[in-house]
Amino acid sequence: MPSPSISILSLGSQVGSLMRGKNQDAHGRLIYDYFRGRSLGVEIVERDDGFINSGAGGAYLSKYQDWPARERSAIRFAKGRVLDIGCGAGRHSLFLQEKGLDVTGVDVSPLAIRVCRARGLKDARLMSIDDVGPSLGRFDTILMLGNNFGLFSNRIKARVLLRRFLKIMNPKGRIIAESLEIYKRPVDPSHRRYHLRNIRLGRMPGQVRIRIRYRNLATPWFDYLLASKKEMKEILRGTGWRVKRFLSSKGPSYITIIERD
Amino acid sequence: MPSPSISILSLGSQVGSLMRGKNQDAHGRLIYDYFRGRSLGVEIVERDDGFINSGAGGAYLSKYQDWPARERSAIRFAKGRVLDIGCGAGRHSLFLQEKGLDVTGVDVSPLAIRVCRARGLKDARLMSIDDVGPSLGRFDTILMLGNNFGLFSNRIKARVLLRRFLKIMNPKGRIIAESLEIYKRPVDPSHRRYHLRNIRLGRMPGQVRIRIRYRNLATPWFDYLLASKKEMKEILRGTGWRVKRFLSSKGPSYITIIERD
Repeated sequence: MPSPSISILSLGSQVGSLMRGKNQDAHGRLIYDYFRGRSLGVEIVERDDGFINSGAGGAYLSKYQDWPARERSAIRFAKGRVLDIGCGAGRHSLFLQEKGLDVTGVDVSPLAIRVCRARGLKDARLMSIDDVGPSLGRFDTILMLGNNFGLFSNRIKARVLLRRFLKIMNPKGRIIAESLEIYKRPVDPSHRRYHLRNIRLGRMPGQVRIRIRYRNLATPWFDYLLASKKEMKEILRGTGWRVKRFLSSKGPSYITIIERD
Repeated sequence: MPSPSISILSLGSQVGSLMRGKNQDAHGRLIYDYFRGRSLGVEIVERDDGFINSGAGGAYLSKYQDWPARERSAIRFAKGRVLDIGCGAGRHSLFLQEKGLDVTGVDVSPLAIRVCRARGLKDARLMSIDDVGPSLGRFDTILMLGNNFGLFSNRIKARVLLRRFLKIMNPKGRIIAESLEIYKRPVDPSHRRYHLRNIRLGRMPGQVRIRIRYRNLATPWFDYLLASKKEMKEILRGTGWRVKRFLSSKGPSYITIIERD
């Protein structure tokens, strides 16, 4: 009797934008259990070629002093009214709220939003990046840290959403987005094979189709876009946005400060 | 291009006893990478109902002082010539070898055996529990710690192997085996559903069909038997073996000292 929540959805379907129901909220359940002291917080990410990865899900609740150096640098670029897209357990939102900024956090995970509220985030909303629009008002900063440039899913959707973001951003607004320089050596052979497969399928090399699993829960499969600096520049071209600066790190992770063209 | 190593084998097949090839040695690769300092050692276990669990795979290399109290108590019952079945990275075997005992470790994982040898275990062999027999000579102790009573897979196979073990054991020989009191409360609802499914399928409630996953590797699915104390007693009845004593713990884990009837 396999649980219906873990049936593998058609890989061809666009599920990344769906709001996640209770039985699919593997991501939020992990965060919630960790928050309540009921889990060690190991996050399991499964890619659609079978590659499985584990990471420290507890990082979703980490304090400023435990963030990577690039995030501590990047957060200084946040100003004014802030929209934190894919806010998770609210680590960035709460930090900025404590600094006195006006912050709205959105996430597709009901339990992640519940944790944000329990931790004191005043404006935490259950919302997909697809539904971000004028109803939220206007912002000075959009945060997409923690690899959340990936929420753009693919090149086309990234460009559609970037243009839409122009309409909700004040003239001097900026986007602070994190991604991975996926070609930075050494590239793991398993990842290299995945990049090549994606190219054959007409996808971007770092367009990973993944899902989060936790105990008997699994999110739907969704596309998450890992883009090199060069690829990110290409995506931005003609959208009204451009790279202001890159904040690099020793590893493949980097953060981009994006401003209006 | 899904890797052939992660294709899901027919759930009906008996794969637990198969020697694991390089592309299936998820268990050994994790141990090997952890041993070489290339992995944080998170072990991912997937059950055939989709339940996924993570644990500290680094425990396979833990030192005596870091073992659970029940294991430290149980290891004192080891004497004479010792056969460690499913020896993993050799934590128990190496401890006893250092105490001067004559130890043979067997495991189905090529890379686990490689790690045992690299760590100094003199007699580490690539061998399944199914192939344990007179060719190995006679023993005074069989070790099945770390839940390795589970390697018996099911009731029938357990009874066949227990009778076979009589022939390779000296008259005062004993088996030291660890399992889980699966009915000890609180029983997780996901596990309870799995037990009930197993009963409907004519399997023992704690007969879990699992595989280990690590990066792009997955072991074949195999049956691992988790038995309560009562069930273990029933399995032993008429095999020539009986429970000498149970070493319990606060949690569901327990260790049984098994001697000849």
